[in-house]
Amino acid sequence: MSGERIYLDHASGGTILPSVQRELLRFLVEVQAAPGGGHREAREARDELEHARGRVAKFLGAQEAEGVVFTSGGTEAVQSAVRGWGESVGKGTLYLSEMEHPAVERAVGRLEKIGFGVVRVPVDGEGRFKWDRVKAGSGAGLVCVHLAHHDLGTVQSISEARKFAEKAGAKLFVDATHGAGWVPFGVEEGADGVALSGHRLGGPKGSGALWIRSGFPWKAQLEGGRQEGDRRAGTENLPAIVGLGVAAEEWSHRGEKFRKDLRKAQKALADGIVKKIPTAKLHGPGVGDDRSPALLAFSFAGLEAESLALVLDRVGLAVRGGSGCVTREMKIPPAMKLIGAKPEEARALILLTLGLSSSMDKMADAADRMAEGVKRLQVALAS
Amino acid sequence: MSGERIYLDHASGGTILPSVQRELLRFLVEVQAAPGGGHREAREARDELEHARGRVAKFLGAQEAEGVVFTSGGTEAVQSAVRGWGESVGKGTLYLSEMEHPAVERAVGRLEKIGFGVVRVPVDGEGRFKWDRVKAGSGAGLVCVHLAHHDLGTVQSISEARKFAEKAGAKLFVDATHGAGWVPFGVEEGADGVALSGHRLGGPKGSGALWIRSGFPWKAQLEGGRQEGDRRAGTENLPAIVGLGVAAEEWSHRGEKFRKDLRKAQKALADGIVKKIPTAKLHGPGVGDDRSPALLAFSFAGLEAESLALVLDRVGLAVRGGSGCVTREMKIPPAMKLIGAKPEEARALILLTLGLSSSMDKMADAADRMAEGVKRLQVALAS
Repeated sequence: MSGERIYLDHASGGTILPSVQRELLRFLVEVQAAPGGGHREAREARDELEHARGRVAKFLGAQEAEGVVFTSGGTEAVQSAVRGWGESVGKGTLYLSEMEHPAVERAVGRLEKIGFGVVRVPVDGEGRFKWDRVKAGSGAGLVCVHLAHHDLGTVQSISEARKFAEKAGAKLFVDATHGAGWVPFGVEEGADGVALSGHRLGGPKGSGALWIRSGFPWKAQLEGGRQEGDRRAGTENLPAIVGLGVAAEEWSHRGEKFRKDLRKAQKALADGIVKKIPTAKLHGPGVGDDRSPALLAFSFAGLEAESLALVLDRVGLAVRGGSGCVTREMKIPPAMKLIGAKPEEARALILLTLGLSSSMDKMADAADRMAEGVKRLQVALAS
Repeated sequence: MSGERIYLDHASGGTILPSVQRELLRFLVEVQAAPGGGHREAREARDELEHARGRVAKFLGAQEAEGVVFTSGGTEAVQSAVRGWGESVGKGTLYLSEMEHPAVERAVGRLEKIGFGVVRVPVDGEGRFKWDRVKAGSGAGLVCVHLAHHDLGTVQSISEARKFAEKAGAKLFVDATHGAGWVPFGVEEGADGVALSGHRLGGPKGSGALWIRSGFPWKAQLEGGRQEGDRRAGTENLPAIVGLGVAAEEWSHRGEKFRKDLRKAQKALADGIVKKIPTAKLHGPGVGDDRSPALLAFSFAGLEAESLALVLDRVGLAVRGGSGCVTREMKIPPAMKLIGAKPEEARALILLTLGLSSSMDKMADAADRMAEGVKRLQVALAS
């Protein structure tokens, strides 16, 4: 295929926003002072840090900026939230599905080992949590829910999760590392903790945030310095933090347009694929409010994911074959199993993750390339 | 005072190396793909990642690059090393001084709480470890030693620490977050684990590395993804990693010159201060091989540190008043107490941390400004 390559692995990283680029550029040439200390450079750095904190809080719809703790990314934010809660309460019950991101699953696993109870939330055939099937456990509780699923794109209802959490006397942690920005969400929906990944918002790699509501039982996980109000030790990565702040501010102002544009682009891509490839099957919810506009999960009957991804790479399309987030012991993405996909479908999972660079035009082209790639692999396997 | 400001808080961050700047600039405009995945962008990212790993390994004098695990900075590397060792061995003894960085101290504190033994290594009047006064404890052991002290600048003998570790049947962890580059060091001196801070090498903020020798008992602390060989989960911060790689390579080639130049600059600054300010007292070793060229710890009799730092800021000198790395509960830097400094000296501690931008000329100027600042505060207090 001719033309520029089309990048559809935005979950792993995309182009950062031009406004963020400009901020990062400024940091390259200035003294990179840290916000700790009394001198002018430190005071200026502190102002920039707190400005960024305010911007991230505003993006989350949070009343008070102090709830924001900057981290090195989404994984750290998730792990810190869950493990920090566990360390604070000592014992209790965690509520989560069997298809949470490994960052959540591993944190919960650590707590389970030391005696915490775990209640699994069943999901329907498109990955939506079925809260009416869950019974409250004992002791302190933490409900762990994702905003959008990392493999299926399913959007969860945070208000339903909130209702369950209230009934169970539990706190609510929202893993928004997938979905933030692309799915309308604010902490007034009742979250007690939220994890964000910066690069998925067009911010810098190595940026992320944990937001915790005042009174959320929690203990710092990275210790050894007074940064971030004793909640996250280590010299602040100010360029990343300020960059995340700029990205958050863009989303506060232009989020509606970002979402509208990507919905259209996603629809063009999904429709094109379904129209051109008879063997295509979309997993999770159809394109609409129940699906993140940033993710499409397809399988193509008879074509193993990694082989297809390699052929697609040859036709200029960068996609993920198989789950983007599996641990070594997982043979197939747990989410696919859970929603009742056949093993051969699970092994055929192709993830197309869209982002700020995914224009309508590119997506029409991408659908053509998908069709070309599928045809090439089918021919190769038939001969 | 006239002229440009002089920045002497390099421990918190300085100017990054021009070669690192160029790399980071490139990353601003490219798609920021992550090294996971089969597509071209991911493969290229993987090559860059492994190239950086090789460069950091070379800088450390390590035979195999695989020992390098990239982290979000020095604090994470330190905490991960000590806590990861503890989690792996289950019980045992830690050997450390009472003046380790809080990142070490807090990690050790967590292990002590769950039953690990802690043996304290006494120090002499300049902060050097007195290994002949230490008795080996029982079970698995970890000797924690810094390369250069964060408040005193004292350089520790890694080979003596190694000898003790061998005698005690313990592993040796070197916190090189202060000292790396500025103090000649290689893992062939017998370290089993080493923590690095990227920004103190002229690399980017948010970069760091943990090096672990093959066979070092250790478990990953940040979980939920297969990045870094299952040793550090989370989308790789490739710009930071590549930037650290470039910085490491510069040090491999130009480290000798960097050290030589800074030694001269440090001597000019120290000599100037002592000559011009009769009340000045240098804490820790004198300028020479036993002191990191990147740090001077002074007190000025009768002048409290924070007030003096503020006055120095007014004469265009950015310095730290008091320890750069204290926890909330520490009133005075533990190192000062430990080496026998008087409480009023400890409260007067001014840290001057030098870096790549600390030229001879600037340091002569800085000594003048120190004298001016001290005089101004003395006059203010006398009136």
